[in-house]
Amino acid sequence: MSQGALSNLAQYSALLRRVGALGLARYLVLAVGLVAMTVFTVPELQGITRAWLMACLWCCFVFFAVDSVVHFRGPVAAGTAWRHAFSPSGLVDLLGLFPVPIALLSGAEPETAWLFASLWVLKLAQNSPGFAQLGRVFVLEARPLASVLVLFLIVLFLASAAMHVIEREGQPVAFGSLPAALWWAVVTLTTTGYGDEVPQTALGRLLGSVVMICGIATFGLWTGILATGFAAESRRRNFIETWDLVSKVPFFQTLDPTSITEITHMLRRVEIPERVAVIRRGRVGDCMYFIAAGEVEVDVEPSPARLGVGAFFGELALLGDSVRTANVATTKPSTLLILDLADFRKLMAHHSELARVIDAEGKRRLGENLRRRETGARGDAVAS
Amino acid sequence: MSQGALSNLAQYSALLRRVGALGLARYLVLAVGLVAMTVFTVPELQGITRAWLMACLWCCFVFFAVDSVVHFRGPVAAGTAWRHAFSPSGLVDLLGLFPVPIALLSGAEPETAWLFASLWVLKLAQNSPGFAQLGRVFVLEARPLASVLVLFLIVLFLASAAMHVIEREGQPVAFGSLPAALWWAVVTLTTTGYGDEVPQTALGRLLGSVVMICGIATFGLWTGILATGFAAESRRRNFIETWDLVSKVPFFQTLDPTSITEITHMLRRVEIPERVAVIRRGRVGDCMYFIAAGEVEVDVEPSPARLGVGAFFGELALLGDSVRTANVATTKPSTLLILDLADFRKLMAHHSELARVIDAEGKRRLGENLRRRETGARGDAVAS
Amino acid sequence: MSQGALSNLAQYSALLRRVGALGLARYLVLAVGLVAMTVFTVPELQGITRAWLMACLWCCFVFFAVDSVVHFRGPVAAGTAWRHAFSPSGLVDLLGLFPVPIALLSGAEPETAWLFASLWVLKLAQNSPGFAQLGRVFVLEARPLASVLVLFLIVLFLASAAMHVIEREGQPVAFGSLPAALWWAVVTLTTTGYGDEVPQTALGRLLGSVVMICGIATFGLWTGILATGFAAESRRRNFIETWDLVSKVPFFQTLDPTSITEITHMLRRVEIPERVAVIRRGRVGDCMYFIAAGEVEVDVEPSPARLGVGAFFGELALLGDSVRTANVATTKPSTLLILDLADFRKLMAHHSELARVIDAEGKRRLGENLRRRETGARGDAVAS
Amino acid sequence: MSQGALSNLAQYSALLRRVGALGLARYLVLAVGLVAMTVFTVPELQGITRAWLMACLWCCFVFFAVDSVVHFRGPVAAGTAWRHAFSPSGLVDLLGLFPVPIALLSGAEPETAWLFASLWVLKLAQNSPGFAQLGRVFVLEARPLASVLVLFLIVLFLASAAMHVIEREGQPVAFGSLPAALWWAVVTLTTTGYGDEVPQTALGRLLGSVVMICGIATFGLWTGILATGFAAESRRRNFIETWDLVSKVPFFQTLDPTSITEITHMLRRVEIPERVAVIRRGRVGDCMYFIAAGEVEVDVEPSPARLGVGAFFGELALLGDSVRTANVATTKPSTLLILDLADFRKLMAHHSELARVIDAEGKRRLGENLRRRETGARGDAVAS
Repeated sequence: MSQGALSNLAQYSALLRRVGALGLARYLVLAVGLVAMTVFTVPELQGITRAWLMACLWCCFVFFAVDSVVHFRGPVAAGTAWRHAFSPSGLVDLLGLFPVPIALLSGAEPETAWLFASLWVLKLAQNSPGFAQLGRVFVLEARPLASVLVLFLIVLFLASAAMHVIEREGQPVAFGSLPAALWWAVVTLTTTGYGDEVPQTALGRLLGSVVMICGIATFGLWTGILATGFAAESRRRNFIETWDLVSKVPFFQTLDPTSITEITHMLRRVEIPERVAVIRRGRVGDCMYFIAAGEVEVDVEPSPARLGVGAFFGELALLGDSVRTANVATTKPSTLLILDLADFRKLMAHHSELARVIDAEGKRRLGENLRRRETGARGDAVAS
Repeated sequence: MSQGALSNLAQYSALLRRVGALGLARYLVLAVGLVAMTVFTVPELQGITRAWLMACLWCCFVFFAVDSVVHFRGPVAAGTAWRHAFSPSGLVDLLGLFPVPIALLSGAEPETAWLFASLWVLKLAQNSPGFAQLGRVFVLEARPLASVLVLFLIVLFLASAAMHVIEREGQPVAFGSLPAALWWAVVTLTTTGYGDEVPQTALGRLLGSVVMICGIATFGLWTGILATGFAAESRRRNFIETWDLVSKVPFFQTLDPTSITEITHMLRRVEIPERVAVIRRGRVGDCMYFIAAGEVEVDVEPSPARLGVGAFFGELALLGDSVRTANVATTKPSTLLILDLADFRKLMAHHSELARVIDAEGKRRLGENLRRRETGARGDAVAS
Repeated sequence: MSQGALSNLAQYSALLRRVGALGLARYLVLAVGLVAMTVFTVPELQGITRAWLMACLWCCFVFFAVDSVVHFRGPVAAGTAWRHAFSPSGLVDLLGLFPVPIALLSGAEPETAWLFASLWVLKLAQNSPGFAQLGRVFVLEARPLASVLVLFLIVLFLASAAMHVIEREGQPVAFGSLPAALWWAVVTLTTTGYGDEVPQTALGRLLGSVVMICGIATFGLWTGILATGFAAESRRRNFIETWDLVSKVPFFQTLDPTSITEITHMLRRVEIPERVAVIRRGRVGDCMYFIAAGEVEVDVEPSPARLGVGAFFGELALLGDSVRTANVATTKPSTLLILDLADFRKLMAHHSELARVIDAEGKRRLGENLRRRETGARGDAVAS
Repeated sequence: MSQGALSNLAQYSALLRRVGALGLARYLVLAVGLVAMTVFTVPELQGITRAWLMACLWCCFVFFAVDSVVHFRGPVAAGTAWRHAFSPSGLVDLLGLFPVPIALLSGAEPETAWLFASLWVLKLAQNSPGFAQLGRVFVLEARPLASVLVLFLIVLFLASAAMHVIEREGQPVAFGSLPAALWWAVVTLTTTGYGDEVPQTALGRLLGSVVMICGIATFGLWTGILATGFAAESRRRNFIETWDLVSKVPFFQTLDPTSITEITHMLRRVEIPERVAVIRRGRVGDCMYFIAAGEVEVDVEPSPARLGVGAFFGELALLGDSVRTANVATTKPSTLLILDLADFRKLMAHHSELARVIDAEGKRRLGENLRRRETGARGDAVAS
């Protein structure tokens, strides 16, 4: 596994720690609640199991009620309770809180009332930045996507009208009315193909074949549009996220704006929790790191050295023979900027001043390392 | 939600206003007509409901008849009625108008005659620029798409001939003739999978597996071709649409042609109706705006300032600390050109003269704002 | 419809003319042969219809036999008959020729023997350059595609072994053996879903859900790989096809090699038959044309002007107000190089000498046109 | 078939040779083992066939046992046996070795115990670099992919709860409980569509239609994300693999770092075994080759010439009239760097010194070839 992948794993474990005990508990309660709600609808369920499940559901409900109260405390104190209630996050809280008791109070059976607990699944989308990104793709490409949907509707209506005419004699139940034929057309055009309604005549099968191929063509276009939109949005998002961090690294501040823009496009941001290994000695290195926030420790002999904000490490493997020469681990939650080998080469080539600084620092560290091993003296030179 | 997304929403609401009452009515009548036509074919329908539905259908018909007459009035006056009749838009009008009465007059049952009302769905495609774009993708990539279709046909014929030989003994109905086997092959190759014809022998299932995997491979290629074509067409279309607007903004006219070409690739066009908020104070800003047409109002203290064609706003959040400092709303239907943060940085870096102008204007506005707050004097300096 | 799309349509009509009467006859015979072969297997077929179909099949067979002999005549004369016989084109000819009579002679029933006529469908792929292109995509991306297939096989075997264990008690026919379970796994993993074998237990359904989602994920990856490969191959192919033509246009020969490479990336090649309208007066123009081969006629007053190899036209609409000012049609089969508006702007910006030439020529033509209209004199100046 | 495709074929045959007799045997044993294991579960199997299959399975088992021992010998000698046991490769070996005997010893029936032999399929993924690449795509795009999965879960739960309410009256078996409705939702949302559970009411069918379209939209997004991620990863991987080789070619060492970075992006690496034809006389050439390792032989008259590491060939067809003038074949296993025509032109244009060297060498070879043909003298000048 490359250093990049390693850092990504570290990033997830960091996310986990940041989510923390409460966050984990939320996801756990959510999973338990959804499973309990699902099992609760099984009609064979009797007596004690049913009682336990209902207890479980009420516990989850109380947990989410407390959770929602915590979410609302801030806005209520700030006098913006109503605004929060109509924000996406507030709506999700309210939808998880009120429908179940309202249904129970209005006399619905518990099996039906607790179905509203399925709205809890919306809590997965709370505070998720990824949704905004996906949403933007749909908004940016709205015009071509709408055209594809119109195409879909046209094929749908014309095909089902034709199929209704062709098959209504032979299959009066399946194709005897246009709503039934429309159902066939949707099932076929999306290539779902239940098989509950299947054309039997030669002409009907010919039309069915055309509809299937239209379905494939339509949704190939749909996927192509989304792929194009996502690629554009992805580039844009990455730039905005990285820009702020780059401007905080002193090392880059000597660069002119053109170069900063260029390097921002090259860097990838990772967040790593404390005490996570970023680099392992002996692995092949294909990237170097800049510290945008936090601190790392390099275990050089005889005693480890620490690097703070603005420092860089991992460059020796890119300058030399590509094998990492030391372990590097974070001592605090850190934000690192990763520069891949390909982009490192490009940067070195275009910015001689940066190349000189990195090269000089690399050589100094290498010399320092050699000297240390000989003298065992403590220093702040590091290598990886 | 980012400013960009906000502006896009504004764009749709603008489209809605432009569509206007008549346009909305058309879509409404279309929806009602298609639903009525669909329900009308249900055989259980009797008596009064049926009468109401037919009345509803006739109303829709009259509406579309009037609509078509309006469409034809201009061409008829200009003496180009025949040419208009054979244009896509004219054909759609005629197809929505004549088939139903012709079918009724030639003695078809109303249930059958009104099926031709499904042609009304084509009105969705009238005046839609998106279709030309999708069509171009198919035209540009016609050669590889044709190759994929040929591949599809080859697999189809060979697989169904082989399957016919393998399975005709065991399943004389499902695979006893090549047409039946071809139906199985289409249903399988498009991964629709009705399940009405399924191979039973070991050899047949092996062949079926190969056909399914071929289907996936073929349509993956199909999607890949469409994605490539759409990405190219999308770039091209955007450039042509933006170019005209850029050349109308005085601010850009000092640039040499290379830079204009470059900036045209960066800008995105949005159309916003009057009285829509473009920027909200306190939000994080990730883009700036140039006014290509229309006017906006910036609510700076003590009295709002107006900006007309050629002015720009929203640059302070990009130069400073990324929070919008004022509300900005349109006063007329406006066309704005959006410059994203990433492209803003690039532009600033490469074009020092532009950078100087924007920076100077930004500083002037900031100073003006400060001064205003102190003196409460009226001015035309704005910030956002 | 834009000029680009128009030119593309022209290109197809050109292809059609080049295919010619014999080529069209081949495709027609192929279609008739395949349909006849398909219908011939229907068991209900009796007497006279059957005789007619067989006659039809024999006619097609004779046509293809003659066709193959024509194909082989050249290689036989050149003494490379064996080499041609094993080339793809030669193999397709032989496969269409020998299997049917061999099967008939070896005593197979006609219904079975004529099934080999399905090999005729391979003739569609003869002389198709698109296949080489698709093939290259698979070759270039062979490593990641192989990884996806391995992933597919791993999920397939593990899922079917697990499903066999879970469901063999309840459904001994559908899941009682591993081959049967494998069939289910293939049908599910490709999302075909016949529904002939469906898990019934809760655990089986959970596993089935995971398999379906794996299927979607796997083939999403597959499509993504093919899309990436196709985009790269498409760029490469276009460059190679255009390069030769560019170097033949005298206009470009004054450019240095860097610029030629650059402009080659911008141009798109179209082939247009004689007497086809390339540009129509009054349409909006978004591209200009260079003549790489052939000749066009511009219908300027009072008498049309002709432009030969190396000339360009359509630039006035790009320099001025974007409306075409004259009709242009080919007088011979021509190869044109299309330069889109976006690329035209880029070219004008980067190459001042080209810009000067095109601009000067444009102005000269405009002046000429004006003068002509006044004097009615004949000249060679043209505009579009 | 182009030279590039030819070289790729050569690459695969090279892989085959490198895999060698033992590697081939492994794949063969793997195939035999998996087939035997599959057939072994068929209940109809009796007596002698069953005995043969079991013998076959034991043979495969012994082969893999020996194979695993060989794999472990190195790590055991190095004292890292435990670490290897928990590495992916070690785990696959152990999973192929222990489960079957453990199951047999714990009293399971042979039919069930041998099912664990399906774990052998994991051996396909051993030592496959492609998996790391695919894995990186998922890691890099983890955030948007997770968002799509959350979207999937939300639609799943809400749709199945609604469908349960709508259809439970009419179809108490298929939709009477939420788990059953969830099964329907998964089958529909992935467009698998078994057809074992199908909504019957009008409202249920409307909801089903929405779910199918959501499924298509969701997985279009999924594919788009993977396509974007794969394109980025592909570019990155290619650069890293080629970089090392480029720096070993003396020809490129005169270039400055910018140019080396640039050319690295242009080159594609192929590995070709000995005695494989790289170029065939008379074919159209669209690329040239640099030798990064190995040796090739050019069959110029009167005696062939050899080219070693750092030499290049195939440039004549790119400089002149595009037809290969000599056969070139490898004499040792070689690593070649391919430069496509498009990139060759770009390189020639931007790097005049390289252009001069290649051009001079080309002219020298051409002269040499001419002189040779006249004198029949032996030389080291070659052409292709």
